[in-house]
Amino acid sequence: MSRTFLEQAMARLAHAGPELEPGHVWLVGAGPGDPGLLTLDALAALAQADALVHDALVSEKAVAVAEQAEKFFVGKRGGRLSIPQGEINALLVRLAKEGRKVVRLKGGHPLVFARGGEEALALAAEKIPFRVLPGVTSAFGGLASAGIPATMRGVNGAVILATGFAAQSDDRPDWAALARTGQPIVIYMGLTHMADTVTALMEGGLAADTPAAFVENATLPGERVVVATLGTLVGAAERERIVSPALIVVGHIVPLREKMRGEG
Amino acid sequence: MSRTFLEQAMARLAHAGPELEPGHVWLVGAGPGDPGLLTLDALAALAQADALVHDALVSEKAVAVAEQAEKFFVGKRGGRLSIPQGEINALLVRLAKEGRKVVRLKGGHPLVFARGGEEALALAAEKIPFRVLPGVTSAFGGLASAGIPATMRGVNGAVILATGFAAQSDDRPDWAALARTGQPIVIYMGLTHMADTVTALMEGGLAADTPAAFVENATLPGERVVVATLGTLVGAAERERIVSPALIVVGHIVPLREKMRGEG
Repeated sequence: MSRTFLEQAMARLAHAGPELEPGHVWLVGAGPGDPGLLTLDALAALAQADALVHDALVSEKAVAVAEQAEKFFVGKRGGRLSIPQGEINALLVRLAKEGRKVVRLKGGHPLVFARGGEEALALAAEKIPFRVLPGVTSAFGGLASAGIPATMRGVNGAVILATGFAAQSDDRPDWAALARTGQPIVIYMGLTHMADTVTALMEGGLAADTPAAFVENATLPGERVVVATLGTLVGAAERERIVSPALIVVGHIVPLREKMRGEG
Repeated sequence: MSRTFLEQAMARLAHAGPELEPGHVWLVGAGPGDPGLLTLDALAALAQADALVHDALVSEKAVAVAEQAEKFFVGKRGGRLSIPQGEINALLVRLAKEGRKVVRLKGGHPLVFARGGEEALALAAEKIPFRVLPGVTSAFGGLASAGIPATMRGVNGAVILATGFAAQSDDRPDWAALARTGQPIVIYMGLTHMADTVTALMEGGLAADTPAAFVENATLPGERVVVATLGTLVGAAERERIVSPALIVVGHIVPLREKMRGEG
């Protein structure tokens, strides 16, 4: 596709997006990685920022769009903070108070397992005007890219998104209760505690032969899908050397992938 | 924001999106309604289509981008089909076999409670090349717009998306089991069977004072948020005359809205 198509379409779309004012902060979702999954408003945010605070999980191409902005890298991977969340919050507050046009760019969606809620609360507490621009969350971008439908009529009427990396006990999901719903579960940041998670799901009644898969580097050029079962997940992760970022998908939506590929 | 920002950003983003070939079908998510939430690839799809099959739940502005395409309206609202799904599937197959460049534009994300999976399977069965372009799903776009974080550290380590409109018994979620997870639930198309759903959630142990809310016309100019509790949802829907499309949100993420607004 030539870029002309996009430019033409943009000219036709009578969309005047929001204006980023000095002293305001926008928490912007970049989607799962593919720059084509940026929203128009995310792109407009990048074009207007004069301070860009970003993660490791956003594409270099997206960051490069904000060429006029001062960059602040606050990356983390695999749930491991290189900079404590409190310092990121304080940085956003300071930049806003300096009258900067601040964009906080995050992988996925800022309010879906991305700690954007904490940043929003820190800004609200300081009376700093902010706005959340949603992105495609990694689970749903990644499943689509892997050819696995998140929902299918006749198969599941619900889908559960969960984090595998809950540091505090009061937000660690009750895996057995999730298992007992019989609904598919998509796990973010699930590699570190995978063995415990699998055990808990089985204690909740999920059979060892429940279909499961990894989607590694979802929507990125190095994307890899590894299909397993709940019982073989841990072994598959070792054998295939699955690394972060990777989604874990558990449930009866996984085998639909073969049908979607015309193989079922 | 002047359109110049967006055009400038687009020129900087070295993104050559996919090319839509004759005889191919793209299932494209338009997001929850706000044209600013279209992805770049969705916009590129609209610019390339010569046949556009679309719902009522996508914005007129998005449809208008595809000015070169023949339009096929297959709308439904409130889960009520005006055209049976099988006919939509057959239309997509026919247009592809005619060698058209087909875009099937759907509100939200095609594989999240939008029946895109059925369309994909119909295309796969006929060996028609297709591709799924994810969009921002209505639940996460709508919650962000309403100022409710889908997840918050210390509050919830999982979030459940469910459909309130399950026609077949085998994909109707077990509401009581969902309730017993203690995790927030976001319900799509929940108005029609709301009274039964509320009863089932309470039978699963959710208290009548569990926070709840409606997000009507999420991300659209007429968006309205009505906060209630599980016990007062049905009455609030009548009193406030809540109409489709509306999300129902149940759980302890709802009160975070006040904090996000600096009121908590």
